[in-house]
Amino acid sequence: MAAVTVGILGATAYTGLELAKILARHPEAAIVFVSSRSYAGQKFSDQFGEVSGICDTELITPEEAVRKKVDCVFSCLPHAVSAELCLPFIEKGIRVIDLSADFRIKDPAVYKKWYGIDHPKPYLLEKAVFGLPEHYREQIKGAQIVANPGCYPTSILLPLLPLLKSSAIPINTIIADSKSGVSGAGRALKLSSHFVEAHENFSAYALGRVHRHIAEIDQELSLAAGESVEITFSPHLAPLNRGILSTIYFLTEASAGECYSVVKDYYNSEPFVRVRIADNLPAVRYVAYTNYCDIAFTGGGDGRPVIAVSAVDNLVKGASGQAVQNMNIMFGLNETAGLV
Amino acid sequence: MAAVTVGILGATAYTGLELAKILARHPEAAIVFVSSRSYAGQKFSDQFGEVSGICDTELITPEEAVRKKVDCVFSCLPHAVSAELCLPFIEKGIRVIDLSADFRIKDPAVYKKWYGIDHPKPYLLEKAVFGLPEHYREQIKGAQIVANPGCYPTSILLPLLPLLKSSAIPINTIIADSKSGVSGAGRALKLSSHFVEAHENFSAYALGRVHRHIAEIDQELSLAAGESVEITFSPHLAPLNRGILSTIYFLTEASAGECYSVVKDYYNSEPFVRVRIADNLPAVRYVAYTNYCDIAFTGGGDGRPVIAVSAVDNLVKGASGQAVQNMNIMFGLNETAGLV
Amino acid sequence: MAAVTVGILGATAYTGLELAKILARHPEAAIVFVSSRSYAGQKFSDQFGEVSGICDTELITPEEAVRKKVDCVFSCLPHAVSAELCLPFIEKGIRVIDLSADFRIKDPAVYKKWYGIDHPKPYLLEKAVFGLPEHYREQIKGAQIVANPGCYPTSILLPLLPLLKSSAIPINTIIADSKSGVSGAGRALKLSSHFVEAHENFSAYALGRVHRHIAEIDQELSLAAGESVEITFSPHLAPLNRGILSTIYFLTEASAGECYSVVKDYYNSEPFVRVRIADNLPAVRYVAYTNYCDIAFTGGGDGRPVIAVSAVDNLVKGASGQAVQNMNIMFGLNETAGLV
Amino acid sequence: MAAVTVGILGATAYTGLELAKILARHPEAAIVFVSSRSYAGQKFSDQFGEVSGICDTELITPEEAVRKKVDCVFSCLPHAVSAELCLPFIEKGIRVIDLSADFRIKDPAVYKKWYGIDHPKPYLLEKAVFGLPEHYREQIKGAQIVANPGCYPTSILLPLLPLLKSSAIPINTIIADSKSGVSGAGRALKLSSHFVEAHENFSAYALGRVHRHIAEIDQELSLAAGESVEITFSPHLAPLNRGILSTIYFLTEASAGECYSVVKDYYNSEPFVRVRIADNLPAVRYVAYTNYCDIAFTGGGDGRPVIAVSAVDNLVKGASGQAVQNMNIMFGLNETAGLV
Repeated sequence: MAAVTVGILGATAYTGLELAKILARHPEAAIVFVSSRSYAGQKFSDQFGEVSGICDTELITPEEAVRKKVDCVFSCLPHAVSAELCLPFIEKGIRVIDLSADFRIKDPAVYKKWYGIDHPKPYLLEKAVFGLPEHYREQIKGAQIVANPGCYPTSILLPLLPLLKSSAIPINTIIADSKSGVSGAGRALKLSSHFVEAHENFSAYALGRVHRHIAEIDQELSLAAGESVEITFSPHLAPLNRGILSTIYFLTEASAGECYSVVKDYYNSEPFVRVRIADNLPAVRYVAYTNYCDIAFTGGGDGRPVIAVSAVDNLVKGASGQAVQNMNIMFGLNETAGLV
Repeated sequence: MAAVTVGILGATAYTGLELAKILARHPEAAIVFVSSRSYAGQKFSDQFGEVSGICDTELITPEEAVRKKVDCVFSCLPHAVSAELCLPFIEKGIRVIDLSADFRIKDPAVYKKWYGIDHPKPYLLEKAVFGLPEHYREQIKGAQIVANPGCYPTSILLPLLPLLKSSAIPINTIIADSKSGVSGAGRALKLSSHFVEAHENFSAYALGRVHRHIAEIDQELSLAAGESVEITFSPHLAPLNRGILSTIYFLTEASAGECYSVVKDYYNSEPFVRVRIADNLPAVRYVAYTNYCDIAFTGGGDGRPVIAVSAVDNLVKGASGQAVQNMNIMFGLNETAGLV
Repeated sequence: MAAVTVGILGATAYTGLELAKILARHPEAAIVFVSSRSYAGQKFSDQFGEVSGICDTELITPEEAVRKKVDCVFSCLPHAVSAELCLPFIEKGIRVIDLSADFRIKDPAVYKKWYGIDHPKPYLLEKAVFGLPEHYREQIKGAQIVANPGCYPTSILLPLLPLLKSSAIPINTIIADSKSGVSGAGRALKLSSHFVEAHENFSAYALGRVHRHIAEIDQELSLAAGESVEITFSPHLAPLNRGILSTIYFLTEASAGECYSVVKDYYNSEPFVRVRIADNLPAVRYVAYTNYCDIAFTGGGDGRPVIAVSAVDNLVKGASGQAVQNMNIMFGLNETAGLV
Repeated sequence: MAAVTVGILGATAYTGLELAKILARHPEAAIVFVSSRSYAGQKFSDQFGEVSGICDTELITPEEAVRKKVDCVFSCLPHAVSAELCLPFIEKGIRVIDLSADFRIKDPAVYKKWYGIDHPKPYLLEKAVFGLPEHYREQIKGAQIVANPGCYPTSILLPLLPLLKSSAIPINTIIADSKSGVSGAGRALKLSSHFVEAHENFSAYALGRVHRHIAEIDQELSLAAGESVEITFSPHLAPLNRGILSTIYFLTEASAGECYSVVKDYYNSEPFVRVRIADNLPAVRYVAYTNYCDIAFTGGGDGRPVIAVSAVDNLVKGASGQAVQNMNIMFGLNETAGLV
């Protein structure tokens, strides 16, 4: 069978490296190019020992990449740059899975509010599908542009969307207290990602209504609820390489058990969502290096908040694994191919 | 000047080791005995290399300890055992600082509800003072029994008590999302404290209204508020040796800035509480190996919760440092002696 | 094609869990049973969240396991116990891959010297093949019993054996300074594996001629050299979950470059050994979660020792991955199946 | 009593921060200035939360620092820059403790060979004393310039120097396999110090005869031996914040026990060297946050190398603690003041 030919823009980001590793062992994908402006001309595996023997090709510039013939392009570039460099591929009709925020926000004004710049290609926003397969599978099948969700949003939306979509369980006053490993902050050199600053440390940042991921979280919660929802979101930096645990509080008339039932039913045939009982709470360790999102519900009673706990590997279900899941859907492959 | 002579029961717990290190360098304390049933007869520093040259004395049994003459006994024993083994000292009129939960709860019925056993010596509860110096300093001065607060409670009560005591700022629906290092679970061997289980992991446990520390948190919040307060409390295990960060959400008419002002004023002359501005959030790294509690306020607005962030070293301000602070107060020493 | 049916004894060890995960996604293996005396009767994935959805079968006793029909049994049991519980399978003609030390040592007297007990089944030792595929591939093909090498030995033997086999490069005075992650010490509860003891710590143990792995290291080095070789071996505990880095010193007339050439040539067509240039030293990060062993040579000159550096993931190439590589060889499958 | 007035150049390096914390609680030192070109004008504790309430002064430029009146200047600047900025203080007769390499090497040609530049002030080298108190205490007392040893050299020289000075124990073929925490690489932003690169990783670098610390190690070993000694030195990066463990191999006629006796006797009255028995090997955990160097000897026999193991906290005995120990000696204070 002819493999899906793919290219990776920004291959030297942590998400790019993870993509390369997943795609290299994917039975029906063939990596045609890996691109990086800073490392162009060097052999991928000379710079990144983990892909030695796995993806030994030479890194090329984005300009050279455009001349390559591929079925699908993944972009691991930062926002704004990503839309710009994806454009030539989009114009050639190539399908694009963008891991940046550039195609996630439907409203250019909201994009500008949170990202501080005018959207480089606002007319493309309506073509893009939010790449959360459990909620947009049908649209993803035919999409040319898939906006791969952020890592925090994936961990927060998966437990909440089925509740908000269910008329039976109105919920409000949502607080998401999320804890992320350091790879979520990328490979860029900054003091907060320095080993000595992050190790044996635990810190909060961008609390309340500050973090950019709020834009897509609010958008998707509101779409599901059919009314405006605004989350309180508290990201934290935990001394892990990878993984996010989100502890999510919300007020509802329903019990934790009723929430469990709704969500368990909703994801019943999903290959990558595991809804667990309250005695068996999710933990980062169970999902690390996998494409699973684990979810459980507890708390509640006497007017106290119900508590959802979810866990994902930020580089897999929170980024590159979900991107490959989207590719599988877009190209009619087995949805779990390369991911189990 | 004559030093305060002290003994440590349960010296081989992490809190016991930390106490031994603090007291050994304390300018006005002299360690008379260190006790441990399991290690009795062995040299403390042969078993615990970190006290070599610092506290080389031989560990003795609790029974031998009772025959020693000291001014003050610290107990690092588990609950129930602690009250039992402290009793002979109490009966001799020796002042006791108990790091277990045995003397923290005023109401024996509440003790039984949370700890599952009848309090071994309920008549002593009224003699005990809750050893949070910033709120009970005067009572601590004359107390024979000081119940040293739990580590989580210290991190949650210090930011909230001034607000609850202030009539100007009614607050409700309190949620404390706390993250603790593994030393908080003690040296006992259990799978959840195994390196491979905890490292590169992040997990929630005992969510909602389950953890025993709720008993003392509710008690102290209610006393401050003058009415019953029940917290939602979510402890988490973080891959650190030491440190707690608590992210605390509550609903209030006040702004984060007003909360800051009330709390900043309240602790203005306190040597071990640092109230920080919202741009400079607390982090475990800043308080590790110190007796400080750092606090800041942010969030709020449009009916959203105000967010308090606090950080302590669970073994210092959350346990052994606070115990020494209490000793300093009880014996009329400089409150910061041995702690800076 | 009919899959190879397999069973795992001691499935709840770290090596057992790793095996279950590898075999569950192996395209040509089918797990028939997972066995554990302590957890028998419980669902594997209820106790171990990481295999939820991957291997949900119920754990059975070793006695029940014997009644199952399988092509191949993997044992992740401790030494002595392992030989005993493998025996019924061996007697039925079933092929066994033993991850314990029980079949690694050819000489029962050497086994007794290092393991302190008489070998339970000495007559089986001659049937067993040392399961280092790069050096015993032909024998492994037909073996009924494969003794999977230890993790430290794998990291030490792979760089040295080609040199000792090469008449051109006599080497002597070998010192292996090895650093291992904590999973190498197993899931058993012991103080040295407690998170707080191992984290932010680095320690040496069993230095010189003390560690049991010396038995198989000396045996294999001596066989390759054609004369008795005795290594100086220094294991260290590093605060990692997984991975071993060995820094190996030896005296030789040859240069590091000559060693590189010999070893590079030797492993030229091996799928799981990557010989790197000295400018690109191996690191644990490059091999973690893979079946690779990375090797490089540097140092030497003016009579100074040549230095070999090697890295493996102790749970993959150092244990369960190598075990599956052996299974692939034994059953005529593609040697890399399930491992890339 | 009049305190020793001190200033810190390069106060925002990890060694500078550690110095500030030690000196702030030192009973007989008063910090007059903290200097940093990049942070000048900002409050020290606003940028570095760990010194809040401890050292709240404003950071000044090196030029402003020169105008301050102090008894002693500590430099935590990088080599070359350090000598340059220390010069104005030296010329004013102020005593300088330099934590960089600039005054460690006696021979300007050796300095140039290892540091790649001409020594900026070669005529000062003869004035400088190598600040290893256990071996140069008398010279340190009267020195104007003390060259504080490197962290790796401290861990390697302390166990070896007494042996080399003892005519009874000739030793040769010395290999030091050292493992360091990441703070040893400084706060500078580089990929190898990025959390995700260093965590769950273990790597070797600059093996053999490459690392600059070899210059001072060889110099001091040779001076002690009375003949040229050249070490094989293998530094490794371990996922710790702080601490060095060195495993040192050497050939000798003596047994490990004889080495122990010589070294134990040598350091018998030293406050900061703990020579341990072989059953109780040093570990980073025992020395972390202390000024101790722990040492033990094992191995040997049948012509095999004797093995010395040593541990220090690279930021304390390996840098700032040792610097304060030197200050105490230079100014006639109790040598342990501020350090226990």
